[in-house]
Amino acid sequence: MFIHKTTYRVRYADTDQMGYVYYGNYARLYEIGRVEALRSLGFSYKEMEDSGVMMPVYENKSRFIAPTLYDDLLTIKTTINSLPAARVVFHYEILNSSEKLVHTGETTLVFVKIENNRLTVAPKNLLEKLNFFFEK
Amino acid sequence: MFIHKTTYRVRYADTDQMGYVYYGNYARLYEIGRVEALRSLGFSYKEMEDSGVMMPVYENKSRFIAPTLYDDLLTIKTTINSLPAARVVFHYEILNSSEKLVHTGETTLVFVKIENNRLTVAPKNLLEKLNFFFEK
Amino acid sequence: MFIHKTTYRVRYADTDQMGYVYYGNYARLYEIGRVEALRSLGFSYKEMEDSGVMMPVYENKSRFIAPTLYDDLLTIKTTINSLPAARVVFHYEILNSSEKLVHTGETTLVFVKIENNRLTVAPKNLLEKLNFFFEK
Amino acid sequence: MFIHKTTYRVRYADTDQMGYVYYGNYARLYEIGRVEALRSLGFSYKEMEDSGVMMPVYENKSRFIAPTLYDDLLTIKTTINSLPAARVVFHYEILNSSEKLVHTGETTLVFVKIENNRLTVAPKNLLEKLNFFFEK
Repeated sequence: MFIHKTTYRVRYADTDQMGYVYYGNYARLYEIGRVEALRSLGFSYKEMEDSGVMMPVYENKSRFIAPTLYDDLLTIKTTINSLPAARVVFHYEILNSSEKLVHTGETTLVFVKIENNRLTVAPKNLLEKLNFFFEK
Repeated sequence: MFIHKTTYRVRYADTDQMGYVYYGNYARLYEIGRVEALRSLGFSYKEMEDSGVMMPVYENKSRFIAPTLYDDLLTIKTTINSLPAARVVFHYEILNSSEKLVHTGETTLVFVKIENNRLTVAPKNLLEKLNFFFEK
Repeated sequence: MFIHKTTYRVRYADTDQMGYVYYGNYARLYEIGRVEALRSLGFSYKEMEDSGVMMPVYENKSRFIAPTLYDDLLTIKTTINSLPAARVVFHYEILNSSEKLVHTGETTLVFVKIENNRLTVAPKNLLEKLNFFFEK
Repeated sequence: MFIHKTTYRVRYADTDQMGYVYYGNYARLYEIGRVEALRSLGFSYKEMEDSGVMMPVYENKSRFIAPTLYDDLLTIKTTINSLPAARVVFHYEILNSSEKLVHTGETTLVFVKIENNRLTVAPKNLLEKLNFFFEK
């Protein structure tokens, strides 16, 4: 299991007239969670794309436990529970600045070769970086 | 069962550098789907809020079957399968301009009294409008 | 002078916790204004891109006269005052549903050849469509 | 003169299909620039709103000198050139990770009492924090 934490400050741009983060804007928080999780391993999503593989989203699930509010400093906890193969699944827990769990999410992404737009498997160097966290 | 269809033109603002609609931007499409579905019944979400009840999102699920692209004229098909009580669930099917199913989604919303921020049940006038579609 | 009008319904996704359309979200309204203005002439921005020319924004100016609110049906009035050459300038006036002028904007875009990323001039077929409105 | 610098990582959510940050998304960068500039002074925009004064945008100008790209770590340099009175003007310079100036912007905001929605002047505690930078 691989776990990573990063923080996110809620901006006016994220809120809606309820005074909550708009439900579609959690996608940005998930994106930050997973890209920074990979960066912490020494793996750059940008470099993967530059080398010809992109990761479109296949499935997303979100549960809105409590609202998140303007200027709050959230913690995004990102978890990978199993080694990616044809897919990779990221789980997120979002805590507000009082350490309360306010949101959970889950995104499944696939690997696609940009040149032919076909499904492929997780790149070797990603697996090498992650392997350490899944060995017994 | 209540079904409603509306269209949405994909904008540059919706796309990302993959050339696809960014996965978080489907939330806007769902919002348009459900608000226009209710409006077609003669029910205004805005008036409900003005009368003191709001509908925050509790849960959201999305499946990305195929990408949606810039300038495509999508059809958003919104379905309510059962009469709302404490919650209302909207299902969406999004078709591209070739009538191909490219995306499905599902949003669960709850009813909250704005004055005390407490859960409540679906407003009477919403149920009255919807009743017709669920009677035998 | 070429003038075009289209309408836009304000969505929850557009609002912020002030209950106004977030200032950055007017860019979407301008985009809709100018793309639909061109479409009304029989000119497709998408086809221009597919044929190898894109139009990045060079300059943008906005004046926020009065707030725009959730669910309001705005009118976006888009004007081209002079024939494009190396640049094209779009002017916008946004009216709320009471026909009150609430916002003005102005965007300058340039023409860029996608293959070499170099500045170019307005495509011939765009000029042909617009010429009619600028001849004496 | 008061100057503040902060950084911003460009996200997929910010990009469009040109592979550039969408022109409307610079508003978020400006917002981060000015809110973090004020926070560095010990002034919280959120607390000002909680105390009954909000700052809607009155005018905005942007110049797009060169595109900003996915995953680039931008520097947002925010400047206040003169003490706020009825208005406050923020100037921004955005540099890419090669220290190249890629964007400039300018936002004028006004002060509004939330209780009566009327224009007011800059709060005393904001002026006290800023005074230091404008005294001779």
